[in-house]
Order: sequence, then C-alpha cells, then structure tokens
Amino acid sequence: MTTRVRRRMGVDERRAQLIGVALELFGHRSPDEVSIDEIAAAAGISRPLVYHYFPGKRSLYEAAMKRAADELSARFLVAHEGPLGARLIRVMHRFFDFLEDHGPGFAALMRGGPVRGSSSADALVDGVRQAAYEQIIAHLRVPAPSARLELLVRSWVSLAESTALLWLDGKRVPRAELELQLVHDFAALASVSAAYDQEVAGVMLGVFAQEPADGPFGELLARLSALAPAAPAVPSQRLPQFLR
Amino acid sequence: MTTRVRRRMGVDERRAQLIGVALELFGHRSPDEVSIDEIAAAAGISRPLVYHYFPGKRSLYEAAMKRAADELSARFLVAHEGPLGARLIRVMHRFFDFLEDHGPGFAALMRGGPVRGSSSADALVDGVRQAAYEQIIAHLRVPAPSARLELLVRSWVSLAESTALLWLDGKRVPRAELELQLVHDFAALASVSAAYDQEVAGVMLGVFAQEPADGPFGELLARLSALAPAAPAVPSQRLPQFLR
Repeated sequence: MTTRVRRRMGVDERRAQLIGVALELFGHRSPDEVSIDEIAAAAGISRPLVYHYFPGKRSLYEAAMKRAADELSARFLVAHEGPLGARLIRVMHRFFDFLEDHGPGFAALMRGGPVRGSSSADALVDGVRQAAYEQIIAHLRVPAPSARLELLVRSWVSLAESTALLWLDGKRVPRAELELQLVHDFAALASVSAAYDQEVAGVMLGVFAQEPADGPFGELLARLSALAPAAPAVPSQRLPQFLR
Repeated sequence: MTTRVRRRMGVDERRAQLIGVALELFGHRSPDEVSIDEIAAAAGISRPLVYHYFPGKRSLYEAAMKRAADELSARFLVAHEGPLGARLIRVMHRFFDFLEDHGPGFAALMRGGPVRGSSSADALVDGVRQAAYEQIIAHLRVPAPSARLELLVRSWVSLAESTALLWLDGKRVPRAELELQLVHDFAALASVSAAYDQEVAGVMLGVFAQEPADGPFGELLARLSALAPAAPAVPSQRLPQFLR
C-alpha cells in the first residue's frame, strides 16, 4: 500500500516532499545535525531512494535552503496600503513568524549553512537581502534612491538580520517587543540619515507626516520625548544648510 | 647578497614578512585574486620557498586573516577618558583607517574570505565582533549587561560592520560623515532601546548627561530638533511605567 502511494508520486512531487521534510527538521535543529537517514525516515522512504532524488546530502540541503530563501523573500511582500509604520510592523510580524518556524534553518542560511563557502550560498543570502531592500524602497516610492537612502535601507535590513540571529540565540527579549523595536530602529536610523541628506529628509518627512499619533512612529516620538532632555543649543553653522 | 639576507631571516620573521606582504596585497585586491606567485614576487623569494614556510595557500591566508583580525580588534581599544561620544568617534576613525588600509581583506574576512566555510574563519569573525562588543560594554561601565543592552551593543557592532561593507563597495558617501553618522546611529538605537528598557535608559541618560553640547550627541539632538515636528500626544498608558 505504502509502496503504491510512493510509486504514484512524481519526481517533482517527491523532491518537494523531501525538501519540505528537511525544512521541517531544520526548524528544530541545525542542518548540520540532521542526517539523510532522519530525512528518509520522516519521509517514510529508504535512504537509497532519497539519493535517487538528490544525488547527495548537499544537493538536498541546497534545494531546501533555496526554498527557505524564497519563502523568506515572499514574507517581505505586504500591501501598499496605510502608513509606512503599520506596513513595517506587518513585515516584521511575518519575518518573526518565519523565524519561529525556521529558526535553526534561518541561522544556517544566513551563515551559509551546510552549503556555506559556496557561491550559491552567498547568492541565496544576497538574494534575500536584495528582495528586502527592493520591497522597502518600493514602499518609500523612490524610483532612484541616493547613496545615503540605499545605505539607510540596506543597513536596516542588515540590522533586522543580526537582531534576528541574536534573538534566536536564547529568545531573551519578547518577540512582539523586538518587532516593534525594529520598526522604531528604522525611524531612528532614518532620522539620523535625514539629518545628513536632503533626499532622505524629504522622503522621511513625507512618511512621518502620514503617520497617526497612535502608530509605531508616533509612539516612538512620545517615548523619546518622555526620555529626552531639552536639545542643547548648537551653533547653526554646524548644521547642514537645509536644516538651518 | 639577496640570498645571504634571506638566509639570515628566522622562520618566524620570514612568516611574519610573508603575512605582511599578503596583507599589503589584500589591501588592494580580494585574497581570492591574489596568487602565491605574486606574494613570492613581492617578498622577493621563490614560490617553493613560500611553501616551505606555509604548507599551502590556505594556511598563509588563514595566518594573514588571523593577523588582520587581531589588528582590527586592537583598533577598538581607546582610552577611557572624556565623554562617550568622543570616544566612539575615535573608535570609528580608527576603524575606517583600518578599512582604508585593508578594504578587500576586511570584506573577505567578514565573508569568511578564502577560508570561508571553515570553523576557523567563523571563529575569527566572531572574535572580532566579541572584542568590539566587550570594549563598548567596558566604556559603558556595566558589569552585567541586560539582554536588551547586549542586543543594543551587538546590533550596533553589526550595523557598523555592514555599513563598512556597503561603504567599501564604491565609497559613495564621505568617510568622515559615515564615522559621525555611525556614532549618531548608536545614540539613536540606544534611545529606542532606552524607551523599552529601564537599565538601558539609566545607562544612556547617564551617558548623555556627560555629553557636551558641541559633541556628536549634542549635535545629533540639534539636527533632529531642527527636523522633527512636535511629538504627537500619546496616551500615557501606552508608555512603559518608567516613562510616565
């Protein structure tokens, strides 16, 4: 009976099943610690049959990392509706959902994982970062970003990545707080960048103008106002022209 | 004559020389693109003699990456004198000096370089990050950092690292501006973190209280004040207890 079901699976379907089984296991333990035997057992097939579909452990793991990278990139797609803060909150929520499901696999992917050191691993990671970057730029509606705006967005993507890796190592800060904090981090880094670059200032002032007081950016401003001492007086000639 | 000079060099001295020559070349081109022949030529010795001191390209490159990592870690050591903002500026200046000297080598180191995929490459990078983390914690004078403070400092180290990699790719933003901006980024991320965590708030309020108005943090506040609209009113029950 099992055999008949097995025989009915096409090659693509079987490969997809094995990738799914591998990713499920990588959600709990690092790919380095998961053997082909375990994947075969979880898929209900023999070890040699796994090798029939994937010539080696590496090719199966590469395929699994590729699918994980595609799934992660897809998480960055949210509707272009409402203020930016709320959109970023949605993206962060989807990102942390992914981390909950694929923690060790994500960590492995970002460090190159079982295929690290290969150009295909670098390309996967670069592809995810590029997808995140392009989505945010699209939300900011900037057709040709300046060097500073590009730096701001790519820096924040990298901050989200490293924050995620640090969070996965022990989960010592509540997830919901980190999701919000990363959105606040974006506002904070954008504000610093805006203090240097007129294009970023224009984009971010436009963004902030559309934020409701009870959105994440409004909340940040209120939190900071409660903390901040009065700004010290700085001679205006130390400020860039567009801020005087 | 050359031969006599060569013979007089001890093993350690010759190894150190080859490492220095390799790092000099890695300052201009990626280690992947530098051959043992070039290193031999630049050191004025034969290719077989290089292999006498290093059994293979990999071992020489590993030794070079090790020395680069040690040099980079040493850059984070600055005197515990004066306000924090000025200290961080000094650290950033030394960091960018290193990037100017070792750009392609730094990029290779951070991506695992020619020894990527090896646990020794991971250990080198982790060691540099840890050195940077410990130095900053020491400047903050916090004996047992909370999870959030640790996250803040490690996140900023990772931000500096990714900003450096982005800058090296084209150098489209003036170096001096980025050095200052990274210090401002630290203040911005610390402020966000302080809005969530009482320990971080205490540490950072103590730090900011010692900053002169014409220091980097004072300048940031002035720049932001010039940009920021009035903070919207947020119901105080949305703020954490210690901010009300």
